[in-house]
Amino acid sequence: MVSCTSAFGPWHPISGGLTAPRGFLAAGITAGLKPSGKPDLSLLLAPEGAVCAGSFTTSLVRAACVDLCAERLAVTGGRARAVLTNSGQANACTGERGLADSLSATAALAGRLGLAPEQVLICSTGVIGVPIPMDTLVAGLDPLVEALSPEGGDAAARAILTTDLVEKQIALEADLGGRFVRIGGMAKGSGMIHPDMATMLGYLSCDAGLPAEVWQAMVSRAVARSFNAITVDGDTSTNDTFLAFAAGEPLAAEHHAALEEGVTAVAQHLACAIARDGEGATCLIEVRVEGCADEAGARAIARTVCGSSLVKCAIHGRDPNWGRIVAAAGRAGVPFAPEAVALWLGEHQLMAAGQPLPFDRPAASAYLRACASGTYLGGPGPSGDTVMVGLRVGEGPGIGTAWGCDLSDQYVRINADYTT
Amino acid sequence: MVSCTSAFGPWHPISGGLTAPRGFLAAGITAGLKPSGKPDLSLLLAPEGAVCAGSFTTSLVRAACVDLCAERLAVTGGRARAVLTNSGQANACTGERGLADSLSATAALAGRLGLAPEQVLICSTGVIGVPIPMDTLVAGLDPLVEALSPEGGDAAARAILTTDLVEKQIALEADLGGRFVRIGGMAKGSGMIHPDMATMLGYLSCDAGLPAEVWQAMVSRAVARSFNAITVDGDTSTNDTFLAFAAGEPLAAEHHAALEEGVTAVAQHLACAIARDGEGATCLIEVRVEGCADEAGARAIARTVCGSSLVKCAIHGRDPNWGRIVAAAGRAGVPFAPEAVALWLGEHQLMAAGQPLPFDRPAASAYLRACASGTYLGGPGPSGDTVMVGLRVGEGPGIGTAWGCDLSDQYVRINADYTT
Repeated sequence: MVSCTSAFGPWHPISGGLTAPRGFLAAGITAGLKPSGKPDLSLLLAPEGAVCAGSFTTSLVRAACVDLCAERLAVTGGRARAVLTNSGQANACTGERGLADSLSATAALAGRLGLAPEQVLICSTGVIGVPIPMDTLVAGLDPLVEALSPEGGDAAARAILTTDLVEKQIALEADLGGRFVRIGGMAKGSGMIHPDMATMLGYLSCDAGLPAEVWQAMVSRAVARSFNAITVDGDTSTNDTFLAFAAGEPLAAEHHAALEEGVTAVAQHLACAIARDGEGATCLIEVRVEGCADEAGARAIARTVCGSSLVKCAIHGRDPNWGRIVAAAGRAGVPFAPEAVALWLGEHQLMAAGQPLPFDRPAASAYLRACASGTYLGGPGPSGDTVMVGLRVGEGPGIGTAWGCDLSDQYVRINADYTT
Repeated sequence: MVSCTSAFGPWHPISGGLTAPRGFLAAGITAGLKPSGKPDLSLLLAPEGAVCAGSFTTSLVRAACVDLCAERLAVTGGRARAVLTNSGQANACTGERGLADSLSATAALAGRLGLAPEQVLICSTGVIGVPIPMDTLVAGLDPLVEALSPEGGDAAARAILTTDLVEKQIALEADLGGRFVRIGGMAKGSGMIHPDMATMLGYLSCDAGLPAEVWQAMVSRAVARSFNAITVDGDTSTNDTFLAFAAGEPLAAEHHAALEEGVTAVAQHLACAIARDGEGATCLIEVRVEGCADEAGARAIARTVCGSSLVKCAIHGRDPNWGRIVAAAGRAGVPFAPEAVALWLGEHQLMAAGQPLPFDRPAASAYLRACASGTYLGGPGPSGDTVMVGLRVGEGPGIGTAWGCDLSDQYVRINADYTT
């Protein structure tokens, strides 16, 4: 069972985040962009020779910084070296000024780093429709560059946050043919995503060298299985960006599959951390669909179940409501035979052959309560605060997993009371 | 502005519902299917020569009665005469027994009405996974047929309800070339749709004769502009069905467009009544999108905005949050130029040329509060409890409207606490 909390193949966790891989420097400082006075300017610098892969929001309404990142990666063939992140203003819906500010911020930073402007990317997160106070940002660049360090991962991870309750970092290491390779990552985003607080940003570093196109393909697959497999409230942002840098001794092709396992594990860990940090959420929900014609179809069904308000409410109410789960699966737009459906909640089987089974309702409800309090210990799948939903829809080879969180009355209050 | 509460072209409201059109008989009784003892068996009988058009759930997991209706309309070329509705058990996810029960219920009723079984349809609504107590249903058929009457519309409308707070009926009349034509309708469904309480049923009657294929095409367009333009929580049911019967003197083709206006108005009234009856909802939300390449694209954007949890929460919180609306529009999958976007909330313009305008935030918030309390009286668009969102995305001819309701903490409590 693929899971956020399952083992990582040959990979094991090590301390640190983005700067755990060798050669990567990072920094995070308070430049004064946020009224709160919290850290708000973050920088990652990859070693020479790095390749960078990107994945961006599919929303039509996207910030100028997203356009700039996508264009620079295309123009340079993935040869970016640095990414600046400002937190406080999303710089989306800011018209022509938005692009001009993104250009001048990256140009000013490139000069200080001795890089070409095309090698510098920028991500912005914060309130939509508000431009960046450029004087403040530019004044912060010298101290930011000075703060760059191989121990700067923590500070960088703090400076990208907006409404997050917790920092999101991870680092993994594996012995690949006698060589220790490391992958690090950080992210921001608080589950129930705010389009007006500029949402999800993710960053990954890796100290192995790969051809740019191999790296981009690997990262795209990992994103499909992680950030594109979490669903929180269905809303996507103007600024969603994931950037992954790889730099170091070239890694032999025979180890690429193992590396991809690690990249996917880091991305899944960060994605689940975002879903778990959902506003008002009390548990993570993992839906695993098997027996589909292909992986994409299985994931589409899993996402639809994870995204159903009625399923999310039922799980919040600790209600083993199989009817809502199977009804959500039926509207995913993926063909399957309803009479083949089997359904599990944790270790409790609720349906077989498309029909409900008699099951121990109080025990299934107790399972949901234990997950919500983080005290579930027994049975298959991960323990802790993850509700496991298993759905078999046929005999096909396709398996797909998606993650989300429950929907609480607190979510509504937080989002209803947000700006007024 | 197309609106649920706007004028109906040449049509004006008259009293009654499904039996307001001449020649239609209906009945509703308590057969004992619901534990509550409320009315639970409903019948509509159309005059000889009637044609019937149907529209059904697109969910893959659908009840046997839905399969049966679709098949009989196809086999008979739309020549159905009667529809039986049982309320209490959805007869979905009940395996082979589900189809056998649907067949025997309609056969038993057909015998009593002197019709062929193929002319009788059945809709079931209630709890998923529970079969119909067939002895109870069959025992109710004689008193049900006896109760058939030209004044039976009210009783029929009551007997189809499950969790609805209010009955949903309407009748319209128009002078079409010197002849008074009537259309009646009834529906059930309570806004935030319960897949486990078998959702939305709608019925329409009309005392004008039309060729079956003309009628089906007209009804399909009306459904696209009404039931398929409401979004409540994104969940669809196993049993969703809309059935429309037309019978009477043939109507000249020159009046078909006017008739379609009436059919659409009845369907929109019923659809909005369902959205307004949403669990925990305090207002109806109408989103009108214009300037799109075509109507389908405009409606897709409108539906996405209406279905956004963040938009629904913001409106519940009386927060004029333009960022969430435009971000939702951007992910609808319909191309438009973000820099062309203009946005209105009631009479308050919040955006122009893709950027926020300075606006009177307290006044816009007061507008939302007035809508929620049903006391909004001024400005363009309907008064009462409808929040009007207007979005222009370009210069194209496509206009589309969708309806929904706000998302309250009460919705979560109702749906979290539903079965346990």
